Amino acid sequence: MEYDVAIIGGGVAGLGAAIYSGRFNLKVALFAETIGGTIILTDVVENYPGFKRITGYDLAEELKKHMNDYKVDLFEERVSDVKKAGKEFEIKSSERTIKAKTIIFATGTQFKKLNVPGEDEYANKGVHYCALCDGAFYKQKIMTVVGGSDSAAKEALLLTSWADKVYIIYRGDKIHPEPINMDRVEKNPKIEIINHTNVKEIKGDGKKVTHMILDKEYKSSKEFKVDAIFVAIGHNVLSELPAKIGVKLNDKKEVVIDRNARTNVPGVFACGDLVDTVFKQAITGVAEGVLASYSAYTYITDEVIMPTGNNK
Amino acid sequence: MEYDVAIIGGGVAGLGAAIYSGRFNLKVALFAETIGGTIILTDVVENYPGFKRITGYDLAEELKKHMNDYKVDLFEERVSDVKKAGKEFEIKSSERTIKAKTIIFATGTQFKKLNVPGEDEYANKGVHYCALCDGAFYKQKIMTVVGGSDSAAKEALLLTSWADKVYIIYRGDKIHPEPINMDRVEKNPKIEIINHTNVKEIKGDGKKVTHMILDKEYKSSKEFKVDAIFVAIGHNVLSELPAKIGVKLNDKKEVVIDRNARTNVPGVFACGDLVDTVFKQAITGVAEGVLASYSAYTYITDEVIMPTGNNK
Repeated sequence: MEYDVAIIGGGVAGLGAAIYSGRFNLKVALFAETIGGTIILTDVVENYPGFKRITGYDLAEELKKHMNDYKVDLFEERVSDVKKAGKEFEIKSSERTIKAKTIIFATGTQFKKLNVPGEDEYANKGVHYCALCDGAFYKQKIMTVVGGSDSAAKEALLLTSWADKVYIIYRGDKIHPEPINMDRVEKNPKIEIINHTNVKEIKGDGKKVTHMILDKEYKSSKEFKVDAIFVAIGHNVLSELPAKIGVKLNDKKEVVIDRNARTNVPGVFACGDLVDTVFKQAITGVAEGVLASYSAYTYITDEVIMPTGNNK
Repeated sequence: MEYDVAIIGGGVAGLGAAIYSGRFNLKVALFAETIGGTIILTDVVENYPGFKRITGYDLAEELKKHMNDYKVDLFEERVSDVKKAGKEFEIKSSERTIKAKTIIFATGTQFKKLNVPGEDEYANKGVHYCALCDGAFYKQKIMTVVGGSDSAAKEALLLTSWADKVYIIYRGDKIHPEPINMDRVEKNPKIEIINHTNVKEIKGDGKKVTHMILDKEYKSSKEFKVDAIFVAIGHNVLSELPAKIGVKLNDKKEVVIDRNARTNVPGVFACGDLVDTVFKQAITGVAEGVLASYSAYTYITDEVIMPTGNNK
C-alpha cells in the first residue's frame, strides 16, 4: 500500500498533523501506539487555548474525534524501522510494511529514570513516573516527587489530593515551574521542598518501598521514610528512527526543524516534543503538526497554497 | 500605569498571547477593538484542532472565557501610537497612555478593495467584504465572489445557502483553495467559476447594484447582471505601528519574526496574520501568541523555563 504521508506518533502533534493531512486530501497512515501520547498522563490541561480546563484524556479524545472527520488509516502499532526506498520511504511495524512519499515524525519523548539501586526492583511497588496514573494508590501516605521542572511541580500538586505530605526533592538551588504553578506550590501546606539533594538509593521490604537514601542529611539523617517516589526528572527524546534516515539532531537529540517543520531530509518533517522548539506546549506541538502537513502537501503537489487573512 | 506586556490586537493570536501572559503572572494590558478579530466573520471553523466544528464567533468566545481566568486589563480601544521611551514603550489609545516593558503586536489584516469605479458608491448596497455578515440579505438572488483563494471559495460556499446562483470571478488560471474546499466547490451545482476575468466597474440604479462590467465577454457580453458582489481578494497587513518603532517588515509588509516570535527590536514580539508565517491558520496564530508571551517573559525575567516532555 502506498501513502502520501506516514505520520509516526499519535500524541497531540501527530493528531494535529493527521487532521490537517486529512483536510489536504492526502492519503494518510497514522502509526500510534497510544492515541494522545503523554498528554493522557496529565490530569488537568489549562493551557490549550480554547479549553479553559479539560483532562488530558478528554483533550486527546476531542482531537481523535476531530481526526475521525477525515480519512486516516490508523494503525495502533509500534514502528520498528524506517528506510529510504528510492525517492520514497518504507515504514515497517510489527504488522505491516508500507510505502509513503513523505514522513512526519511525532514520536515525542519517554520518562527518564534516576538510575539508582532499587529503582527497577521497586518499579510500580513505590517507584512511579506518572502521578495521575498511580497517585491514588497512596491515600494518606507520604510521597516524594524528584525533580524541579514545571512537570515536577504539577505532579506534586496533583499528589496533594491524596497524600498527607508531599516532598519535592531537587538537586538544584530552586525549582523552576511556570510562575502560576510556583505560586500554587508555595501556597500548598502539604508540600515541602528539599533543595540541593539527590536520591542515592531506593530501599524496601521486598514488597514495597519503605525509604530512600539521600546524599545529604535531612533532619539529621540520610534515611528518608517514604511510601511512594514519583520520578519527574525529564524525558528522553525518541529520535532513533529519524536519525536512521539521516535527519539532523541537536545536542539534546531533538530533531532540528525550520519554521515550516521541515527537517534537513527532503520529504521528512517533524513536530511536537521530538523537535528543537524551546518552549514545548501542547498548542505549539499541534501547530507544528499542522505546519508539517502543509509542508508535506507542498512537497508532494509542488503547489503553494496562498492563505489570506481570514483563511482560518 | 506600567505594564509588563502590552498586547495590541484581540484576534485569536492576541488572545493566545493574553492567556499565556496571564499564566506567566505578567501584568498584561490587551488593546482590542474587536475581541476575536477576523475569525468572527467566519461562519464555520473546522480547522482549529480540538473543535471539530464551531462558529468563528463561538471560538472567539471560548478563547475570551479562557483569558478571563487570568488577570488581564482589557481596553476595547484602537491604539493610535507607539513609541520607545528609554528601555520601555509608550502606547497611546483614544482613552489613555500606558507604559510597558514589552509589546506583542497582533494587529492582523484588513480586507483589500478592488479599487474600481462604483465600489465605494455601492459599498453595503451590493458591494460587500464578508459573506457571513451580509449574505443573508440576498436570498434567492445572484451573487458573485471575486477572488481565487481558500477564503474566496469558502465565501462562495457559504453564499450558496442563500443564493440561487454564485459566480466566482477570478483573474488567474484556476482558483486555489484548500483541496477539501475545492472539492466542495466542484460538487456544488449552484457555483460556477469564471477564470481569466477582472471586474472593471460596478454599476447600479443609484440605490443598489444592478450589474458589473467585466474586462472579457461572458456569454457574449461584458455586462454581467448581479445583485451582490463579495470581494475576497486578500488583505492588507496592519503593520504601520510596528514599523514606526523600527520593526523589520518583509516585501508583503508582514512583520519578520523568528521561531520564538521575536522581531528584530528587543522587547518587541509579534504573532498571527500580521507576521511572515507562510501558512497562516488560527491554530498557528495562537501558537505564535503563546511563543510571543514566552519570549516576553524570558525577556523581562531573564529566566529560561526548561520545559520537559509532558509540560503541557
